[in-house]
Amino acid sequence: MEKDTRDKLIEAGEKLFSARGLAGVSIRELSQEAGANSALISYHFGGKESLYSAILEKQFSPIGILLDSVSGIKASPTEKIIKYAQGVTMVHGKMPFFTKFLMGEIISPSRFFEPLIQKYIHRVYGFLTNTIREGIDCGEFRKDMDVNAAALALAGMLNFYFISRPISRRFVPDGTVQGENFVVQAVEIFLSGVKECGDK
Amino acid sequence: MEKDTRDKLIEAGEKLFSARGLAGVSIRELSQEAGANSALISYHFGGKESLYSAILEKQFSPIGILLDSVSGIKASPTEKIIKYAQGVTMVHGKMPFFTKFLMGEIISPSRFFEPLIQKYIHRVYGFLTNTIREGIDCGEFRKDMDVNAAALALAGMLNFYFISRPISRRFVPDGTVQGENFVVQAVEIFLSGVKECGDK
Repeated sequence: MEKDTRDKLIEAGEKLFSARGLAGVSIRELSQEAGANSALISYHFGGKESLYSAILEKQFSPIGILLDSVSGIKASPTEKIIKYAQGVTMVHGKMPFFTKFLMGEIISPSRFFEPLIQKYIHRVYGFLTNTIREGIDCGEFRKDMDVNAAALALAGMLNFYFISRPISRRFVPDGTVQGENFVVQAVEIFLSGVKECGDK
Repeated sequence: MEKDTRDKLIEAGEKLFSARGLAGVSIRELSQEAGANSALISYHFGGKESLYSAILEKQFSPIGILLDSVSGIKASPTEKIIKYAQGVTMVHGKMPFFTKFLMGEIISPSRFFEPLIQKYIHRVYGFLTNTIREGIDCGEFRKDMDVNAAALALAGMLNFYFISRPISRRFVPDGTVQGENFVVQAVEIFLSGVKECGDK
């Protein structure tokens, strides 16, 4: 029963905070949405801010798990990028509010941005630049490109797809750009774009 | 003098609405930020909602002007994409709040999303898919790719860079990925990725 209320508060917070941010949601709205007495927010989490921070941790921790798994594998840089992209698609599938929290925190950072979200962004960026650098060193990728620009370009392709999905559904012909299919196509364009010419 | 107050209200609105959205800003905050009597919002715009809508129009209209200019030019699909990307960079340079309004409206759409923003998104998407299709037809681009996925991938590369700029500045080594340089590099990766193989 206790766990039930805790889960309901998390769910209510995911829905409300993802749309309006930490400052835009009151304790009263949270307890109404969860169908729980507002005192239970303090009881379970210690307050609105701590509920928000628990939700952020829940949203971002799968990215940490993904990075742990792809960093360790024995694979070529090309394969690592494909595995990472597949993993990102899975995280978005399991965490439908993830992009909203990420974008909301980028537009109006809360005090949790630095301690909580920035470390994940740093790790993703480190993984991408290291893998691209590795690809250049072993001759898989072109030498004449900027590693930072390539990392941002790939992150942009993947992230923006999930950001824009609620609206792209309105105008992209049905079925052509479903999640996994888009990611396969986008990564294929990226990899062809960075591939060392003689490799083709 | 009158024009002055109007401009101040627009500026105040750009700053506050871009960070907190239409619902998150009160008339009182707007008039305080602008240093103007709150009655002047009604006088100049008819109310908070109309001020917001005037700001959205101002933010998005340069995209319409850009599309008018790149759609008409006599150029190859590759050149059109480069010109479009350069234009997008210029729009972001002139409109520092543009991405925040776009992302804010995607995360929590106001009632102005459909009548006002969607038409621009449709036009951008139409321009990109038409240009990519043209490139496939004339043999510049690969036949074996999904036009919708390629359009979303390019839009993602470009948009995400501007979305993430406030945070990427914190971890991307200084100077390597400045606005114009990033866009040149990202478009180069995209164009190499979609290029017909024999073309290389």
